[in-house]
Amino acid sequence: MSIIDIITKKKNKKELTYEELFMAFNGYHKSEIKDYQMSSLLMAITINGMTLNETLSLTDIFIKSGKVYNFNKKVSDKHSTGGVGDSTTFIVAPIVASMNIPMAKMSGRSLGYTGGTIDKLESIPGYKTQISEEEFYNQIDKIGLAVCSQSEMLVPLDKIIYALRDVSGTTESIPLIACSIMSKKIASGASYIVIDVKVGSGALIKTKEEAEIFSSWVISIGNHYNKKVKTIITPMDEPLSSSIGNALEVLEAIEVLKGKNNKLKEVSVEIASHIVSMAKGISVQDAKILSNNALKKGSAYKMFEKWITTQGGDLKGIKVSDKVLLLKSNIAGTINTISALNCAKLSLKLGAGKTTKEDIIDHSVGIKLLHQIGDKVNTGDVIAEIYVKDYDIELTEEDLKLFIIK
Amino acid sequence: MSIIDIITKKKNKKELTYEELFMAFNGYHKSEIKDYQMSSLLMAITINGMTLNETLSLTDIFIKSGKVYNFNKKVSDKHSTGGVGDSTTFIVAPIVASMNIPMAKMSGRSLGYTGGTIDKLESIPGYKTQISEEEFYNQIDKIGLAVCSQSEMLVPLDKIIYALRDVSGTTESIPLIACSIMSKKIASGASYIVIDVKVGSGALIKTKEEAEIFSSWVISIGNHYNKKVKTIITPMDEPLSSSIGNALEVLEAIEVLKGKNNKLKEVSVEIASHIVSMAKGISVQDAKILSNNALKKGSAYKMFEKWITTQGGDLKGIKVSDKVLLLKSNIAGTINTISALNCAKLSLKLGAGKTTKEDIIDHSVGIKLLHQIGDKVNTGDVIAEIYVKDYDIELTEEDLKLFIIK
Repeated sequence: MSIIDIITKKKNKKELTYEELFMAFNGYHKSEIKDYQMSSLLMAITINGMTLNETLSLTDIFIKSGKVYNFNKKVSDKHSTGGVGDSTTFIVAPIVASMNIPMAKMSGRSLGYTGGTIDKLESIPGYKTQISEEEFYNQIDKIGLAVCSQSEMLVPLDKIIYALRDVSGTTESIPLIACSIMSKKIASGASYIVIDVKVGSGALIKTKEEAEIFSSWVISIGNHYNKKVKTIITPMDEPLSSSIGNALEVLEAIEVLKGKNNKLKEVSVEIASHIVSMAKGISVQDAKILSNNALKKGSAYKMFEKWITTQGGDLKGIKVSDKVLLLKSNIAGTINTISALNCAKLSLKLGAGKTTKEDIIDHSVGIKLLHQIGDKVNTGDVIAEIYVKDYDIELTEEDLKLFIIK
Repeated sequence: MSIIDIITKKKNKKELTYEELFMAFNGYHKSEIKDYQMSSLLMAITINGMTLNETLSLTDIFIKSGKVYNFNKKVSDKHSTGGVGDSTTFIVAPIVASMNIPMAKMSGRSLGYTGGTIDKLESIPGYKTQISEEEFYNQIDKIGLAVCSQSEMLVPLDKIIYALRDVSGTTESIPLIACSIMSKKIASGASYIVIDVKVGSGALIKTKEEAEIFSSWVISIGNHYNKKVKTIITPMDEPLSSSIGNALEVLEAIEVLKGKNNKLKEVSVEIASHIVSMAKGISVQDAKILSNNALKKGSAYKMFEKWITTQGGDLKGIKVSDKVLLLKSNIAGTINTISALNCAKLSLKLGAGKTTKEDIIDHSVGIKLLHQIGDKVNTGDVIAEIYVKDYDIELTEEDLKLFIIK
């Protein structure tokens, strides 16, 4: 079978075998298959879908393209399929690690509107995001929590396929998303995995129905590798927290770790509870009580400090810009909507995200939303603070459409 | 709109505007759009289709990518969407030209099982397939018939898109096939166009239904440019004539021009009749009588000689190999099927076609089928002659499965 036969088979909605998928994807990894052949196959997959069998095969091919990590104890991991103002890792990891459930997390940088976990961590002066494999294993042994940059050896095939999908209009594919996420989680050695599935018009997964299919698939993939997987489905139409921007989001997470109640806390506790429930074999309800306690008693915050310090970070050094513009409401009314997408776009314009590899992220800029949905505001009320690099930044009315007030 | 937005729009089954198609295809022509983006878009088009509006837009973009030829009289053209043993051009062109209906034809070489019209013409020693634009126009003025290689300036966008489709599994798309064929026919200046649509499992167009849709589309595209277009639909499960191979097919066509009756003659007369009907504004029935007369009275053959001689060809110099293997039937029975695909594969193996640009075509080799469907044969009867370059060619039983005898 030639690559053309394989592409044509998928074009004709037929199921590809492991061998055929291997020939195509491993061949691409070895540069035997051309970019334009792979993008054509990816489009056929995006439109015609893949069966669970195909998705399991492809996940396996992805995993075997690189290194598979092994820990001498069972470790946990979490993943979110995108989200604005989502700093749950900073809260979930310390909660579970404080209960002796290790979390060994390899995170990515974001090439998009807002920074990824690694970008956020780099807003903490001194924090080493790149550590050796030995250091990574040792830190898990010693304190049960480590978050570092993805190794080049972690599913290298995903890296090149993801880059190609990004530039060929083939990102919106549930089986390809499932394969991309799960191959990395499985290869990085996690036994307990929670996936936070973001749903919304701005997300890769548009509807609740799609999210449910996606959930059942990632669970099936996990089970195939003897991993426990839970998913939660959260809307991403509005930002998860009132802070958007790298340093701002870390500071917001710290506030939650110190006792603040908000939606970020809620979602973090939910994710943590699922991990605790799987790891300890207790009900999610009981796990939630333990997770809330870890926050209340300060053990989560203590764990957080230990983690950041062990990896060289100086929490006192986190800086946000001292140049702040105040966004005022030009009408009186009730806040009806906060647009995650518009917050993300503005944060990108401010410099908090990047669209090309060459862009440099400014960790100190971002947005602080001072109101929530349902709040009543008067004309002239300050509704958001915009942390800017320079006051001469030109922001249009369009850029500042963060709220809909009715 | 970015190219990703355009690809995604087609992925989501939305109709693309002229501007969007222009941005994508013209951008690709100018190397602003990458191969892997175009192949992804082509796959989305292949699976999700294009509306007639989109196909008209794309045809126009194709035409405008190169030179549009103009004659000082109305000229005719014909095209076949593939076929084995199809040398109709050699018969149709002289028939219509003998009735003062000029045929100005730019043909291609085949990159496939069997040679294209240009390859077949090159089996005639001295025939100049590459002539200048001036020579082309002059010859049409002088004798009303010229067939030459496609100019580099004729729809250059089709050339690069066709090459990409060939290697990305996106050949089986009715709108893309219609666009590719019609853009070249319109750009090369024809006013009367007949398209012979080949249908069958081995053809790009698989079913009669698809062929009918395709027909209505090429007619609509033609009408849009004020061109008269007719289509005929012919099955390509069996070879059109009993000769397959470049020189052999020219010789077979000459036999028809000299009076031989067979299926090749039938199809040629049908195509010619449609052209004559359109050009003279008479019924197809009346045109058929005129076409048959042109063959009977020898005016078509005289025209053929004039054409070949004018373009430098020496008809007496056509040579087939003197090394002939005889294929004998190993059972007694009736010929039930002749496989066009297997004849084509064998002719490729003999050297009559080519699969890479570097392959060199051997004009002297090929197959002569000595029996037709329905003929009774005995064990040991010679059923085909195989013209080979060397007797040491290794032919397997599989290679020689040209007939099914029951």
